[in-house]
Amino acid sequence: MHPDLIFHQFFESESSTYTYLLADRAGGESVLIDPVYETIDRDLNWVRELGLKLVYVLDTHVHADHVTGAGEIRRRTGAKTALSASAGVACADVSLRDGDELAFGRFRVRALETPGHTDGCMSFYCEGRVFTGDALLIRGCGRTDFQQGSAERLYDSVHQKLFALPDETRVCPAHDYKGLTASTIGLEKEFNPRLGSGKTKGEFVRLMSELRLAQPKKIHEALPANMACGEKGGPP
Amino acid sequence: MHPDLIFHQFFESESSTYTYLLADRAGGESVLIDPVYETIDRDLNWVRELGLKLVYVLDTHVHADHVTGAGEIRRRTGAKTALSASAGVACADVSLRDGDELAFGRFRVRALETPGHTDGCMSFYCEGRVFTGDALLIRGCGRTDFQQGSAERLYDSVHQKLFALPDETRVCPAHDYKGLTASTIGLEKEFNPRLGSGKTKGEFVRLMSELRLAQPKKIHEALPANMACGEKGGPP
Repeated sequence: MHPDLIFHQFFESESSTYTYLLADRAGGESVLIDPVYETIDRDLNWVRELGLKLVYVLDTHVHADHVTGAGEIRRRTGAKTALSASAGVACADVSLRDGDELAFGRFRVRALETPGHTDGCMSFYCEGRVFTGDALLIRGCGRTDFQQGSAERLYDSVHQKLFALPDETRVCPAHDYKGLTASTIGLEKEFNPRLGSGKTKGEFVRLMSELRLAQPKKIHEALPANMACGEKGGPP
Repeated sequence: MHPDLIFHQFFESESSTYTYLLADRAGGESVLIDPVYETIDRDLNWVRELGLKLVYVLDTHVHADHVTGAGEIRRRTGAKTALSASAGVACADVSLRDGDELAFGRFRVRALETPGHTDGCMSFYCEGRVFTGDALLIRGCGRTDFQQGSAERLYDSVHQKLFALPDETRVCPAHDYKGLTASTIGLEKEFNPRLGSGKTKGEFVRLMSELRLAQPKKIHEALPANMACGEKGGPP
């Protein structure tokens, strides 16, 4: 990692969500990835103590398990919100397409379309790290049974976009439920039980179709709120 | 951080404990810091998948809130257990004094005596990171009201040993309860509300004496178990 790139990982325990802060030490321009509504104060306090200026708030996708902090952070800081054009979120300031780049100071975040968990899933690459949202989790992946989910598309996204990155690329997912904090592309290629170690697309599709998961507790609150950048329907 | 130093942070959610893995990519010798009994399988699976060989299992102190995984990991892997000589844990393979170093591959962990939360608290320094146990937490510190705790000694440990490290040193604590994962010495000097920003020893001692905290839930199980390296009294 570049010595002037500040990196911080935050964890929100109710939804087991990781939020990430990236910043250029020189000048202090910074981006937040996947902030959670309930932990906005903590995250913005950290930004303030580091003396940073938020320029973008990114969502990897329209989350179903928590309300995004993006809209409220925009309101408080003036940062621009950004996510995939395919997510259909009209209130976003920036609609991203595959390959688009967002600058903060001397660094860039590159958007990689990685649909499958949802239509509008993006991963974000920056300086040897990839923020994979729910497309690729540590030894797992996001579900594909709602929000236009498609196991076929997720398999292709992971194999064609994420597994094409160098093996040493650090994988920073949107969630973990077992206390794991990061992985690498090389480790997930080898040990991901759903998507790695030679699993075929057919095997993956069958496996995903048999999961029979319960609905996320907050889905009926989170989806409409997140389509409005978290500004309506969030906790009062 | 040296490019050949593997670093991984794990989280155990019941006791909010961070466990750390450090390894030399060349040769694979590695150390675990503060493993928790309940998450031994997860941690050792990670070690195995990375192809590492554990040489030491370190405890920063005799924990009161969880049972250490050290003894059981020693039994399964042959790694040596190590902690402060002042902890009085007779079953430890290595009893550490201030300034002692333990080698794993081409790297060294240096022991820093940082008593105050307990008599036998140590911090461990390695390649720009300091593993502070409960001596210094992110914007906080460990309690000082049992296990020979002393607010005076903790203040001196933090100010004389930890705050003497370079400002950019990454602080990796044994716990966090708000989803913060790491800090730096510079940030804690400036923003730690108990120990930083010009707080005097007198102010700190008074503050610590007024906390009136409840006892840790597991203290009556954890202390005797941890005095036996976690080998007796751990979950069956």
